[in-house]
Amino acid sequence: MPRYKLTIEYDGRPYVGWQQQENGRSVQQAIEEAILAFTGETIVVGGAGRTDAGVHALAQVAHVVLTKMWSPDRVRDAVNAHLRAESITVLVVEAVSDDFDARFSAVRRHYLYRILDRRAPPALDRGRVWHVAGRLDAESMHAAAQALVGRHDFTTFRAAECQARSPLRTLDRLDVMRQGEEIVVRASARSFLHSQVRSMVGTLKKVGEGRWPPNAVAEALAARDRARCGPVAPAHGLYLLGVDYELVRP
Amino acid sequence: MPRYKLTIEYDGRPYVGWQQQENGRSVQQAIEEAILAFTGETIVVGGAGRTDAGVHALAQVAHVVLTKMWSPDRVRDAVNAHLRAESITVLVVEAVSDDFDARFSAVRRHYLYRILDRRAPPALDRGRVWHVAGRLDAESMHAAAQALVGRHDFTTFRAAECQARSPLRTLDRLDVMRQGEEIVVRASARSFLHSQVRSMVGTLKKVGEGRWPPNAVAEALAARDRARCGPVAPAHGLYLLGVDYELVRP
Repeated sequence: MPRYKLTIEYDGRPYVGWQQQENGRSVQQAIEEAILAFTGETIVVGGAGRTDAGVHALAQVAHVVLTKMWSPDRVRDAVNAHLRAESITVLVVEAVSDDFDARFSAVRRHYLYRILDRRAPPALDRGRVWHVAGRLDAESMHAAAQALVGRHDFTTFRAAECQARSPLRTLDRLDVMRQGEEIVVRASARSFLHSQVRSMVGTLKKVGEGRWPPNAVAEALAARDRARCGPVAPAHGLYLLGVDYELVRP
Repeated sequence: MPRYKLTIEYDGRPYVGWQQQENGRSVQQAIEEAILAFTGETIVVGGAGRTDAGVHALAQVAHVVLTKMWSPDRVRDAVNAHLRAESITVLVVEAVSDDFDARFSAVRRHYLYRILDRRAPPALDRGRVWHVAGRLDAESMHAAAQALVGRHDFTTFRAAECQARSPLRTLDRLDVMRQGEEIVVRASARSFLHSQVRSMVGTLKKVGEGRWPPNAVAEALAARDRARCGPVAPAHGLYLLGVDYELVRP
């Protein structure tokens, strides 16, 4: 049956997160309803990253299997027509082979975390950045972050409810830089633990404020102790930037 | 009495525009109420640009006169505390001399217009960009725009309800460029007529689509006829970027 890869942008604020949940409307549910309205089929949309409530996506990836063959552009436009009332949009639809799975075929995930580092709270970017009124030192945050790059046991930076079997992950990149009034954190890895990016950002913020010495991050990692993590950064500053795949064959 | 210059950011969506009106809540009103809550004084906040309903500001400028002397930072923080429920924030407060008037002392105003030029509608930037699904040619838009730069009678690009005495204005800059999926228009002038930027952008879009030849813009200007203007671009793509002053003395 025809299988499609969907690249999806969303503002996470109105949703309980990507995944279907009991306590409210999810991004997944909104897309599944749009597909039902378009094709009459009740299907499950599998996503590459289970973003939490309030987390945004510039390019989440999902796959769907439909019974009828449609042109990819037709799928995109029809689903978007049914998503008009939502803050969700399908950017691209591509036909993919039967072995493509948005979650399991992914080889790298990229996240962006935005901190608005100024005295005045955000007006235009309310709910889209973490507002930190005190001045942060982006260079010391970046230097401290480098201790986390590589293959490590990330128990310290993992939410209690994380369901992954192993706390071992390979962090390919964790860059912190200032862009005007913003501190921007970019993280890339094959996969992340639950709340890993927000846990790392919350810890790095302590360094940026000068409250923790830069080597506190390496020590917190080595401790493998959740209690050594800084306060977890809020969801609304986080963006799923993109997901890489080895090969997407039609 | 102490006079302050306020630099203000806002998301224009929830408001009827900058200026006090009968039909809803204005940005001006929200700020006046915040100042009343802070100082107990009922004052009028004079703004540099009367942005329409839905128009945003990255740096609107206003002045206020208070009876008591406060430190500028205290004014900023206290007003922001009372604006917490609004999508308005005061970025900077400065003490200024008695002859400073946000509107009449302004020597140049800068606007930004954002067009999202892609097939999929916006999710993250809903209400903050004009979505144009067909591909626009930014270079031909820029070339056509240059006919509008300079001192001209802008009757063609002026709203019927414009209250300015003269349709003559000097446009210092009208640049159109592509930035990824966005077409960005930047306009600078000492002052603009009512809806002038949106009228110019709506006309340039016709050129970008290839529906109007580039010289149609110069001809529309020369005609001095409102009927020759393209459809006015929507308010929600427009941002007041900033206002220049000759000198702000404390």
